Amino acid sequence: MSNQPDRIYFDNAATTALDPHVLEAMMPYFTDKFGNPSSIYSYGRESRLAIENARKTVAKILNAHPAEIFFTSGGTESSNTAISAAIRDLGCRHIITSPIEHHATSHTVDHLYHHGEAALSFVKLLPNGHIDMEDLEHLLANSHEKTLVTLMHANNEIGNMLDIHAVGNLCKMYGAIFHSDTVQTVGHFPFDLRNTPVHFITGAGHKFHGPKGVGMLYINENVKIKPYIHGGSQERNMRAGTENLYGIVGFAKALELATEQYETQSSYIRELKIYMMEQVKKQVRHVSFNGDPLGCSLYTVLSVSFPKTEKSEMILFNLDMNNICASGGSACTSGADQGSHVIRAINNNPNQVTVRFSFSKHNTKEEIDFVVEKLKEMI
Amino acid sequence: MSNQPDRIYFDNAATTALDPHVLEAMMPYFTDKFGNPSSIYSYGRESRLAIENARKTVAKILNAHPAEIFFTSGGTESSNTAISAAIRDLGCRHIITSPIEHHATSHTVDHLYHHGEAALSFVKLLPNGHIDMEDLEHLLANSHEKTLVTLMHANNEIGNMLDIHAVGNLCKMYGAIFHSDTVQTVGHFPFDLRNTPVHFITGAGHKFHGPKGVGMLYINENVKIKPYIHGGSQERNMRAGTENLYGIVGFAKALELATEQYETQSSYIRELKIYMMEQVKKQVRHVSFNGDPLGCSLYTVLSVSFPKTEKSEMILFNLDMNNICASGGSACTSGADQGSHVIRAINNNPNQVTVRFSFSKHNTKEEIDFVVEKLKEMI
Repeated sequence: MSNQPDRIYFDNAATTALDPHVLEAMMPYFTDKFGNPSSIYSYGRESRLAIENARKTVAKILNAHPAEIFFTSGGTESSNTAISAAIRDLGCRHIITSPIEHHATSHTVDHLYHHGEAALSFVKLLPNGHIDMEDLEHLLANSHEKTLVTLMHANNEIGNMLDIHAVGNLCKMYGAIFHSDTVQTVGHFPFDLRNTPVHFITGAGHKFHGPKGVGMLYINENVKIKPYIHGGSQERNMRAGTENLYGIVGFAKALELATEQYETQSSYIRELKIYMMEQVKKQVRHVSFNGDPLGCSLYTVLSVSFPKTEKSEMILFNLDMNNICASGGSACTSGADQGSHVIRAINNNPNQVTVRFSFSKHNTKEEIDFVVEKLKEMI
Repeated sequence: MSNQPDRIYFDNAATTALDPHVLEAMMPYFTDKFGNPSSIYSYGRESRLAIENARKTVAKILNAHPAEIFFTSGGTESSNTAISAAIRDLGCRHIITSPIEHHATSHTVDHLYHHGEAALSFVKLLPNGHIDMEDLEHLLANSHEKTLVTLMHANNEIGNMLDIHAVGNLCKMYGAIFHSDTVQTVGHFPFDLRNTPVHFITGAGHKFHGPKGVGMLYINENVKIKPYIHGGSQERNMRAGTENLYGIVGFAKALELATEQYETQSSYIRELKIYMMEQVKKQVRHVSFNGDPLGCSLYTVLSVSFPKTEKSEMILFNLDMNNICASGGSACTSGADQGSHVIRAINNNPNQVTVRFSFSKHNTKEEIDFVVEKLKEMI
């Protein structure tokens, strides 16, 4: 029997706690060092230097060139920029995507499609939620116009991970542009972008204990696009607007910490996920797990479905009453009440209730014990 | 004779120091209160509440409805959103603007014009840099397509202020949409948006002692537009992406402080500007002032032109050597070496060197004495 903790935060795929060391790195820029990074005097150049150092740090960690790293306001802006540019600047007239993308991708794609700027194809999914690679190749082989493939590296709801190299190689073979929403994987997995056949990837600081309101867009040096946000010459004319100086510094620091801690934290968090899976299976009847949780999957995310009953329909409410934070799907879509488009796409079973538990280095097995016990009571 | 201070920051139109009280208001959201504002559990709802309270605060101060206030990543994104939406969603096919707009406006307008999405007209300027209202009316009267007028409330380089009511009334008379870049005036002047005939205004937190990386877009309730950044349902489906929670809280707090302090600070800063003007005139020969510094002008900005000499051409460099921060024009364009498009538009005199001094509540007459003395030595 565990004691009730203050609050159990099992929604780290929605957002994570800011690491105190990240805040510490940001603090000087909230106080003394407030100069505009675009100002030419030395005081502005100090801010500029902080940004360029952050860019170098990020580039080095991802094994990219600093000139390929652009800071944005977040993952959503990054995906909007990449997808729109592929159509408007790189001549793509056909988009291949999946039905389980984050809305930052799917709504941008829909917008372009509805304005007649591109044709649209959806790649088939396998029963475990992975992309059907044969269907992807079939779609690429039958595409007679320049094509953008936009497929997320890891699904934020079910955790499924894409073989980014295999997809990139297919894209390369068929001359397609490849964008991957990597918001759930940057800061969670090593990247080696010089050896990864991808044109655009994205990142959001707050998904790996960095700040909200700042993101990254990697643009492979072989593609040249125009800015999505027009104005000043910030980010080498690629993203206008006074730079979010503290955010950028915090993004780099968070990525640095995540990289240093990767080996220990990833295995620690993976253990938590597997432990929760085992405990839930043992203690709650008729549960099932969405996606491919023990296969090619995020170590941070566990998507659990319960048979729909009066009790299970109240599960999120009751978890909240017990100070347990978990979600029905993406936080970004929680305003809508249609359930998750991801769960519907992979497993259209109206007799289930799905909860996503997502973990971080701050979680413990004791928390899992407590949550599983509560689940047992609730179901 | 003044003692040399550490650093004299006379570039407050570029960015301002974050107010410690603003940072204090932001701090809980950097530490304990990190929940995703879109998450439905109580911990997320606390964050949501902070954002909605910020929205109410901003709306109340500007005398707008909370549903008319949208938070963005900054003034540049706000202007991009408004201008693009006027063309793409509101059916405008003609843009009337001025040659002295900030690049956030002018480059967005250029982009739409070069893509054939709108015709483009430039309103004439009077010798003092103000808009020629007769020419504006002439342009509106002769516009046979739905028109967007985009004119900044205050010019960031020379300080000239627009009669936003007069322009808005003209726009109303001719059925035009009116966007005003108010980045230099929100947080510096009172607004009464319910009684101001304008469809879109913008704000940037860092211009009034708030944080960088956060801005505001006011969208009059009578116009309905689509989002510029597509994705999640944040900001009532108008601006996707996990909210910059601390930034939004800081924006509202900074606006609150600016409003409380308006009477005292604005007259204090206006005095500084006039004092500097007098001192420069008295002590440095052949100076002139751009715009309408004693008329309809920002109390924060003083644009000074010196005759071009070997010495004056080094003035920004020498100010920097003396730890004095001032700028040649907008920080956003300082990467370019073509000089200021604003100064060129109002006074195309190649034999002048222009410096913008811009003040805040943290500046003093002693600083001005020191700077004027240095200017005297330098020229």
